[in-house]
Amino acid sequence: MKIILDCFGGDNCPGSAIDGALLALEENKDIQLTLCGDESVIGAYLADKTYDKSRLSILHASEVVTNDDVPTLAVRRKKQSSMMFGLQTLAGGEYDGFVSSGNTGALLVGATIFVRLVEGAQRATLSPLLPTMVDGKQTILVDGGANVDCKASMLKEFAIMGSAFMSSMGVDSPKVALLNNGTEEEKGNALTKEAHALLKDSNINFVGNIEAREMFAGDVDVIVADGFAGNMSMKAAEGMGKTIFSMLKRYITQGGLRAKLGYLLLKPSLKKLKGLMSSDAVGGGVFLGVKKVVVKAHGASNAVAFKNAIMRAMEMAEADACGKIASALAKRDNQ
Amino acid sequence: MKIILDCFGGDNCPGSAIDGALLALEENKDIQLTLCGDESVIGAYLADKTYDKSRLSILHASEVVTNDDVPTLAVRRKKQSSMMFGLQTLAGGEYDGFVSSGNTGALLVGATIFVRLVEGAQRATLSPLLPTMVDGKQTILVDGGANVDCKASMLKEFAIMGSAFMSSMGVDSPKVALLNNGTEEEKGNALTKEAHALLKDSNINFVGNIEAREMFAGDVDVIVADGFAGNMSMKAAEGMGKTIFSMLKRYITQGGLRAKLGYLLLKPSLKKLKGLMSSDAVGGGVFLGVKKVVVKAHGASNAVAFKNAIMRAMEMAEADACGKIASALAKRDNQ
Repeated sequence: MKIILDCFGGDNCPGSAIDGALLALEENKDIQLTLCGDESVIGAYLADKTYDKSRLSILHASEVVTNDDVPTLAVRRKKQSSMMFGLQTLAGGEYDGFVSSGNTGALLVGATIFVRLVEGAQRATLSPLLPTMVDGKQTILVDGGANVDCKASMLKEFAIMGSAFMSSMGVDSPKVALLNNGTEEEKGNALTKEAHALLKDSNINFVGNIEAREMFAGDVDVIVADGFAGNMSMKAAEGMGKTIFSMLKRYITQGGLRAKLGYLLLKPSLKKLKGLMSSDAVGGGVFLGVKKVVVKAHGASNAVAFKNAIMRAMEMAEADACGKIASALAKRDNQ
Repeated sequence: MKIILDCFGGDNCPGSAIDGALLALEENKDIQLTLCGDESVIGAYLADKTYDKSRLSILHASEVVTNDDVPTLAVRRKKQSSMMFGLQTLAGGEYDGFVSSGNTGALLVGATIFVRLVEGAQRATLSPLLPTMVDGKQTILVDGGANVDCKASMLKEFAIMGSAFMSSMGVDSPKVALLNNGTEEEKGNALTKEAHALLKDSNINFVGNIEAREMFAGDVDVIVADGFAGNMSMKAAEGMGKTIFSMLKRYITQGGLRAKLGYLLLKPSLKKLKGLMSSDAVGGGVFLGVKKVVVKAHGASNAVAFKNAIMRAMEMAEADACGKIASALAKRDNQ
């Protein structure tokens, strides 16, 4: 499998991106990586590193899409950027996937325009894979922020795509739930009430409503939401996680020697916890509904997060996740 | 100040409610409490307790609104319940506030119908007071779930009410932010974009958009959201909190003697943290937009949570929070 990595645009680029690529090459011997971006900068960074040169190449791109770029303009005006040139190259044919930690909106628009939507998809979704309390299990959130104004039919489409994605990842008959303000069928706003009825009538394994407080319980495989509600939930959870860890730090400082000693002893457990709940472990979100694998790594990704995002892209490409989503959408009239 | 406490309907009722009332009587010598519910059950529970009998009375109500009751039916058919009879008694005149841990929807409908909306309010909101990273500071979320389908004009009204509430609590020129999927002005769904423009044009101290991940930062005093997004954010944060604490417990168990010792040493800090982030500390949400103080305690409230909710009601009544909200709404055409 051949994956292109956008080495510019994220907070820790290009260093962490390139380091992540080298970790990925070590972890998986089948992977071939192409680093996209300024070749002199990438070349200089690689100069003193040891890696399998036969599986790493550079694709030169002179520009960078920044977080200040307006997505629709970036697509038109920054065609030579590591992100847009990378996406165009992906669309060209010989590559299997693309990973970027850059401007999310630009990546969404770029993927939609250059890689294009699979037949039957109205929109692409940006779908984070949430950690859960069940060991090794992740839940996909469709949509996590790409589509902030949705119709009920879009939510049904998100459900079909999410279900097909999890199937392609080896989950048998994925459990799909609708994010709502109560578990009872009659709960919801106008949108979720209508979507609930559509999902109930479909052939998806729809298990009903789920409240945001159960997002991480690991009871379901797919959580369906409009991008606004999905984004709120994800970021609120992230905010609570950050708050807890930073308040704990403060209390430990205030707690004197006893608390400090306790912290030292508990450090491995706390580190494990922080790792589980961090975006590094998850390896970013995936775009569902585009013709080829596009993975979004978190803007603040470190090398491990990049490596995980690359592995995610590799896994999706091997499983033909995009093809399976297209097939599921083609069958939707029966669903 | 005279507060009515609904002693039935919550998970730990009537025990925790009554215990909370006794704690409140001890903490504040100006408070007068009326316990609403089955007088024989309440009387039996009080039989062996020591408290200032001159400040505690019982208001008999034979029925109970349960969580299974449909709110609109509960209002019509359970007029003799501790919740509905309590609300009618509050509306009658001699009392200053009402606290309940029962069915939230029924409490909202009951408060709206019996206590009635202040002039100029389209709807009442259920507004939780969120803990923040700033010592002793809380942020109010308007709306946390009462109104799941909103127009932009409603969000502006929520902002006015939230701002007036925080003013009445002693906050000078409360900072009001709009919950959104990005801080930039152009971000948002159709609703928040329109609301942003309305808020920007108002005389409220509107500081712009806030992302859900900053909900607990304590940078703002009022967070404005439609009830659906507000509910998602609050519950997602709650879910993350629960997940972190239960995963930590699991890791400590797995971590052997070292982790257990660390936990024992760190226990005071962890307890403090759990206390800060728990709904017990916060003392429930408040209903903004009704003519008299109505406070919702968390369904799972223990005695301390009830005591805090009673103190909140007391504080709001003393500050004439409802009157100040009405004045702010009356002036809204200038805002």
